[in-house]
Amino acid sequence: MSSVAPSERTTVRRLPKRAVYDRAAIHAILDEALVCHVGFVAGDQPFVIPTTYGRIGDRLYVHGSAASRMIREVAEGIPVCVTVTLLDGLVLARSAFHHSMNYRSVVVLGQAREVVDPAEKTEALTAIVDHVMTGRSAESRPPNENELRATRVLCLSLDEASAKVRTGPPLDDEEDYALPHWAGVVPLRLVPQPPVAEPRLDPRIPVPAAATAYRRPGPGPVSD
Amino acid sequence: MSSVAPSERTTVRRLPKRAVYDRAAIHAILDEALVCHVGFVAGDQPFVIPTTYGRIGDRLYVHGSAASRMIREVAEGIPVCVTVTLLDGLVLARSAFHHSMNYRSVVVLGQAREVVDPAEKTEALTAIVDHVMTGRSAESRPPNENELRATRVLCLSLDEASAKVRTGPPLDDEEDYALPHWAGVVPLRLVPQPPVAEPRLDPRIPVPAAATAYRRPGPGPVSD
Repeated sequence: MSSVAPSERTTVRRLPKRAVYDRAAIHAILDEALVCHVGFVAGDQPFVIPTTYGRIGDRLYVHGSAASRMIREVAEGIPVCVTVTLLDGLVLARSAFHHSMNYRSVVVLGQAREVVDPAEKTEALTAIVDHVMTGRSAESRPPNENELRATRVLCLSLDEASAKVRTGPPLDDEEDYALPHWAGVVPLRLVPQPPVAEPRLDPRIPVPAAATAYRRPGPGPVSD
Repeated sequence: MSSVAPSERTTVRRLPKRAVYDRAAIHAILDEALVCHVGFVAGDQPFVIPTTYGRIGDRLYVHGSAASRMIREVAEGIPVCVTVTLLDGLVLARSAFHHSMNYRSVVVLGQAREVVDPAEKTEALTAIVDHVMTGRSAESRPPNENELRATRVLCLSLDEASAKVRTGPPLDDEEDYALPHWAGVVPLRLVPQPPVAEPRLDPRIPVPAAATAYRRPGPGPVSD
């Protein structure tokens, strides 16, 4: 598996044993999560905005209305940070101090470029819809000219990406293992519920299998 | 219910019908979520770091190792943005363009202050542990002097907070309702799984009810 060379900026300093620079691991986290948090600076104020995204190879795509502040600011090519976090479980230690979470997260640094090439823009929008549900773009009406004009798409390279993963049980100080407190993990899963049809839907239209048996791609958490 | 006056900076401009400034609604989202994303700027680069938190009244607390870059930078009193996002469902429209997510999110702007008063620091650390699981701090060993010294706690006021909420079915363009595509919502829930005991745990120690019947506080999503 190829790996992303950590830059000075993406080298994980805190708890480096949790760091992952493996490209396949980074891709798997990005493919499983649904929402990213885009960080950008306007004036001297940082903003962190949740949004959906898509991935094609080593490129992350986000989109938004031409009226969105986040899109307008980030399209200027300013430095951004896009963070994706999967929460896998609560880590309950014997000591308050060693409480933690099991998680998998990716941090991407860089400068976004606006996607202006029509073919790449269409591919990116397809990837964003299909990221939510595989094959969904083929089962919905494609964007028309007005919608394409109203939508801006930004691309961020994954060159400067790092992942951080915590798995497994709590780790307590040696002398605390004799304490009478319960310790362990409560795993958490994002579980799809039965689809709810839009009220005006023609009841003869079948629910797609991708919705009734919805699941995220990827291996899921490494262990609890 | 009291409401937070939106400042110029926290006024939701994009899709303002989704904006919520009600204090109780903001608190409920913060209490239900487990992880926040802290945005801060170092040099001219924004960073977005996931972390746990606690809330006491109109104050949000985060903590971290004294060695953490995030904590060191943010403790300087620089502008920060803390964002909390609950993902409630996939919104599948007839058109690719109207695909969306149901979500509840809170964005808090401000400058953090470091908590140095020992009593407030203890309260904040208790709130952070109890945020993960109600009553958990009373069922674990409290922090000792070394641990307190190794931990820094930051406080962010909720004065400049806003929430954004999307609920309900997809909304399509009128002419698209006749299309043969399925449309609706796939609700998503973060579901706790059976607790996994730490391998060295004395099997005579019972699993706390808060772990076997784990649930997040609050009303959950308003509707799918």
